[in-house]
Amino acid sequence: MDVPETSGYRLKNKVLGPALTTDQLEHERLGKPTALAVFASDALSSTAYASEEILRAMLPVIGFLAFTAFLVPITLALVTVLVILVFSYRQTIKAYPSAGGAYIVTKDNLGLMPAQVAGVALLTDYILTVAVSVSAGMAALYSAVPFFYPYRVEMALLFIAIIAWGNLRGVKESGRIFAVPTYAFIISMFAMIITGLVRGMVGGFSHVPMPAEHEAIGSGAVGLFLVLKGFASGGAAMTGVEAISNGVPAFKKPEAKHARETLVIMGAILGTLFVGISFLAAKYHTVPSAKVTVISQVAKHAFGNGPASHAIFFFVQAATMLILVLAANTSFADFPRLASFHADDAFMPKQLTKRGHRLVFSNGIVALAVAAAIPVVIFKADVNHLIPLYAIGVFTSFTLSQAGMSVRHIKLKEQGWKLGLFINGLGAFTTGVVTIVIGVMKFWHGAWFVIVLVPVMVALLVRLNRQYEAESVELEHEVDDAMQAPVRTRHSVLVLVSDLDRPTARAIQYARTLQADERRAVHAAADPEKAERLAHRWQELNMIRVPLDIVDCPDRRLARSVMDVVAEELADGRTEVTVLIPRREYTHWWHRLLHDRTSDELAKAVGRLPHANVTFVPYHFGSTPISAEERAAYHAAKHH
Amino acid sequence: MDVPETSGYRLKNKVLGPALTTDQLEHERLGKPTALAVFASDALSSTAYASEEILRAMLPVIGFLAFTAFLVPITLALVTVLVILVFSYRQTIKAYPSAGGAYIVTKDNLGLMPAQVAGVALLTDYILTVAVSVSAGMAALYSAVPFFYPYRVEMALLFIAIIAWGNLRGVKESGRIFAVPTYAFIISMFAMIITGLVRGMVGGFSHVPMPAEHEAIGSGAVGLFLVLKGFASGGAAMTGVEAISNGVPAFKKPEAKHARETLVIMGAILGTLFVGISFLAAKYHTVPSAKVTVISQVAKHAFGNGPASHAIFFFVQAATMLILVLAANTSFADFPRLASFHADDAFMPKQLTKRGHRLVFSNGIVALAVAAAIPVVIFKADVNHLIPLYAIGVFTSFTLSQAGMSVRHIKLKEQGWKLGLFINGLGAFTTGVVTIVIGVMKFWHGAWFVIVLVPVMVALLVRLNRQYEAESVELEHEVDDAMQAPVRTRHSVLVLVSDLDRPTARAIQYARTLQADERRAVHAAADPEKAERLAHRWQELNMIRVPLDIVDCPDRRLARSVMDVVAEELADGRTEVTVLIPRREYTHWWHRLLHDRTSDELAKAVGRLPHANVTFVPYHFGSTPISAEERAAYHAAKHH
Repeated sequence: MDVPETSGYRLKNKVLGPALTTDQLEHERLGKPTALAVFASDALSSTAYASEEILRAMLPVIGFLAFTAFLVPITLALVTVLVILVFSYRQTIKAYPSAGGAYIVTKDNLGLMPAQVAGVALLTDYILTVAVSVSAGMAALYSAVPFFYPYRVEMALLFIAIIAWGNLRGVKESGRIFAVPTYAFIISMFAMIITGLVRGMVGGFSHVPMPAEHEAIGSGAVGLFLVLKGFASGGAAMTGVEAISNGVPAFKKPEAKHARETLVIMGAILGTLFVGISFLAAKYHTVPSAKVTVISQVAKHAFGNGPASHAIFFFVQAATMLILVLAANTSFADFPRLASFHADDAFMPKQLTKRGHRLVFSNGIVALAVAAAIPVVIFKADVNHLIPLYAIGVFTSFTLSQAGMSVRHIKLKEQGWKLGLFINGLGAFTTGVVTIVIGVMKFWHGAWFVIVLVPVMVALLVRLNRQYEAESVELEHEVDDAMQAPVRTRHSVLVLVSDLDRPTARAIQYARTLQADERRAVHAAADPEKAERLAHRWQELNMIRVPLDIVDCPDRRLARSVMDVVAEELADGRTEVTVLIPRREYTHWWHRLLHDRTSDELAKAVGRLPHANVTFVPYHFGSTPISAEERAAYHAAKHH
Repeated sequence: MDVPETSGYRLKNKVLGPALTTDQLEHERLGKPTALAVFASDALSSTAYASEEILRAMLPVIGFLAFTAFLVPITLALVTVLVILVFSYRQTIKAYPSAGGAYIVTKDNLGLMPAQVAGVALLTDYILTVAVSVSAGMAALYSAVPFFYPYRVEMALLFIAIIAWGNLRGVKESGRIFAVPTYAFIISMFAMIITGLVRGMVGGFSHVPMPAEHEAIGSGAVGLFLVLKGFASGGAAMTGVEAISNGVPAFKKPEAKHARETLVIMGAILGTLFVGISFLAAKYHTVPSAKVTVISQVAKHAFGNGPASHAIFFFVQAATMLILVLAANTSFADFPRLASFHADDAFMPKQLTKRGHRLVFSNGIVALAVAAAIPVVIFKADVNHLIPLYAIGVFTSFTLSQAGMSVRHIKLKEQGWKLGLFINGLGAFTTGVVTIVIGVMKFWHGAWFVIVLVPVMVALLVRLNRQYEAESVELEHEVDDAMQAPVRTRHSVLVLVSDLDRPTARAIQYARTLQADERRAVHAAADPEKAERLAHRWQELNMIRVPLDIVDCPDRRLARSVMDVVAEELADGRTEVTVLIPRREYTHWWHRLLHDRTSDELAKAVGRLPHANVTFVPYHFGSTPISAEERAAYHAAKHH
């Protein structure tokens, strides 16, 4: 008997591609240049908005002329943090060559609970990475083609949907797809910086024309507070630095060595670009605007006004948009995996551990897409409003992960542990300070939300874990004895009957194959006249082996009436009750919509009683051949 | 064993009131004054917007001075139609004292198919009655209190929700609730007309001040076309005239006599109000505006400017709003009943025949609320945009119902049938002409939608009916023989096992109570290592009576693997298979959310095979007592 696939499954195969079997789970091994492309998109892409965010934080206060003096120093301070981070993560890669994410490192060294904090902070940040990157990608798009500005939210949601769909299909972390935009972005940024520097040194740095709808410009004094505010805003540039440490096994052998080298290269590129862009933005006196990004103003000004420059400008914007979208894609690889770690440890719903049709964690992908769409809609795809929520999570996880590494050095005292402790201790201290700076500086701009959300989520996860644990204890309790437990001595079979029809006949037939001490049909009489007709016909049929029992049901709650009958059977404590429910199986989904779900409701209600076993006896429409004449006769009778 | 009610059911009792038993289904008998209040709200309330709609249709073309000459004649033409309708429906009441709705009358005399047309046309109109009445009610509100104007859509939806909730609770068609607003409206309208007439005759009719944002005023010539357009717009005043004929059994005895008298009284009041309002609106040269209704302008002008007049004005607006909301309520009584007639005849989903918790047709009520909310949202609660969709449906059903009555007179030839035929024939002809006028005049303004919708819906209903018929024929086919059919000779019991745990133990225990020719446990191995561990433990337990069968499942589609196993068992054509699925019953709804629905999916898949009977063996969490020590030991083991 070969059963055809359902139409739902066939559709799934079309939309997502043919199903993959578990043994097809494998990882591509990447060389350094491709690995850089795959893992660096998140980190590098943040240079597209980091300098702008520093400007946005300071410009409304300190004014048009003073800001030049502070953009570059703040950038350099952030690059210092970056250098410390790179060295810290080199330690992590060495210690955890198989998987060195913050969750694993924290769990291993600080325990399960701190790991939940690190994990939740990181998950929050992955959600925001998608929201920020896609929104920034749309900003790159409408800076070049203003036509798209009014549709930025819809476009952003569309991109999230496309990325999610690609990930459900199981986009391979394939070098080719990633290499083109990442290198296009790196090359175009370097081209922009070099062109800008050379032209500036030759002809002097002129100012960018002020954009039409630019931000307010202030005239206040510069203070430590303001500088820290700018610093906190620029912290977003550091997100994604941890990506390589998560993916060491994807490198060609020797994995750890290649990963560490790639990390240094990535850090060098990121730092150089960040400083270069900030330098040009400062020299050009670029003013942020809602409708044109700072980086697109810089690019336009650096390349000048010729027709070739115009083409280059569009190329830069396209590369920026693509790398930002790729950065979002990185979160779609990381979030579901991290969520599955939580779920494996029973701190998140088990469904997140399940590999879908194409071997990816489908539930995690869908969850991320939905979660990222919410801030995009709420903040209308405005990067500036999303940034304060961002970075605090990632720095929290940096801190925990580096602290975990420090503890590890102290515990294990491996060769060179003192240097390692110094590096990771410095890393933990620095990122801890940055976390506090961001939390304080951005508190009222939205960081409060993340600061509240993370502990609430952690508390929720702990509650989940308690529930899972309680279930596991019970499920495994003396299971060997239970397997051999003596059976109940009496068996009662009840057939639920609504009408005298073929499904009922099928159920009666099945009931007769079962051995039982008691066997009867039960009809809950919501309509007394109908019940009487049924009883009469039952009598005519002389159904001695399965007598009919009519139960009053004046409140039309069939499930309740049936439960009462079943409960009575069970009352002696030694009876196993089998309740047979005839269930119609339809050939088309819409046929089912024409009927209510009484059989499911009944099953659910009866299932609430222990030792009440519900059996669905299927009746398949189309299994009884009906002649055309019979059909016509019926129709004629109904329509006069 | 007394099983507690679920929290869902307790909530239902709180929100909707305690459940009613079927024998509590009864009807209040109404005297003429209360009956008038109950049945007339729909018809009378339309005077709140009918004159305005005529003005809106004509004013943009014929101009400020000319329209005075046409508003009243058009109103009189419509009142003539009203008189014919009243006399026609007196005939219907006589012939159908138990239920004389268009569906019943048309089905009885013209057949099932024309009845579907009449019914669908009427259902469409009930939906629009709710949308129009609630929107017009909001217009009455914001004409008096402009603050509410921006919130009109939300307010309208809120009112629809409240009315639906009241009807789900089973609002009695109670005289008291209805009498106050209906009579308040009637009295205040008469007071307005009389005051206006007296003051006009004494001091002359002055013009209303032109509202700030009024409609455009034209200067074209008057033609037949334009007059017909005005006429078509005013047709909305006639909706609701059929209400009494639907509700004859609710009158005190002799029902038909009382109903006919009430109908005449209602017609007289409706006609008088309509003419009076149109007369004053014309004399006052009232110009429609988006933000103030015509009737509120008339009321303000008629009562003058003193402080007492101000209070009276607010009273008029309040009464108008309330009667409009009541009119919507009328549809909530009629729509579910009419839908249940369709469903009884198997032309609509059977679910619409089911009486809910409080004996009302709950599904119909919810369907109407959802359907009415859609046009309110689409047309932003703007009566003017809803009107062209309106009235065409009700006139279609008038025409069919009167045509049915004419056929009846010819067939039965009862005493006085010639006069009856003349009256109903005139009725059918007049309403038929009006239907065509409305269809043509309003075609491009939205009537096209209804003209397309009705046949499409009827076609859909016929398709449904065919499906129900096909099912019924099959269900009843040689059912007596089927009840006595011989049983299958072999019985195979398969226990689906995912883990070695208590639910599995329960299922094994139950399996051992069943008599079977074959009995085994089946594990679909999505994870080969886990499968091996399971097999090993099974062997240790020495489960001879229920051996374990491990089935490969590399594509992780458990349901598919299980189906293959079951299909193999069924292959001999003489085996009845029982598939036991251990099913966990949780104590809280959110506990269930923490697990996927594998057991349901498996049941659904296996149920696709004939003679594969799925039994859920319940395991109830909390049924195994666990000591605190055991719990603590487990926790310690997990958290190191």
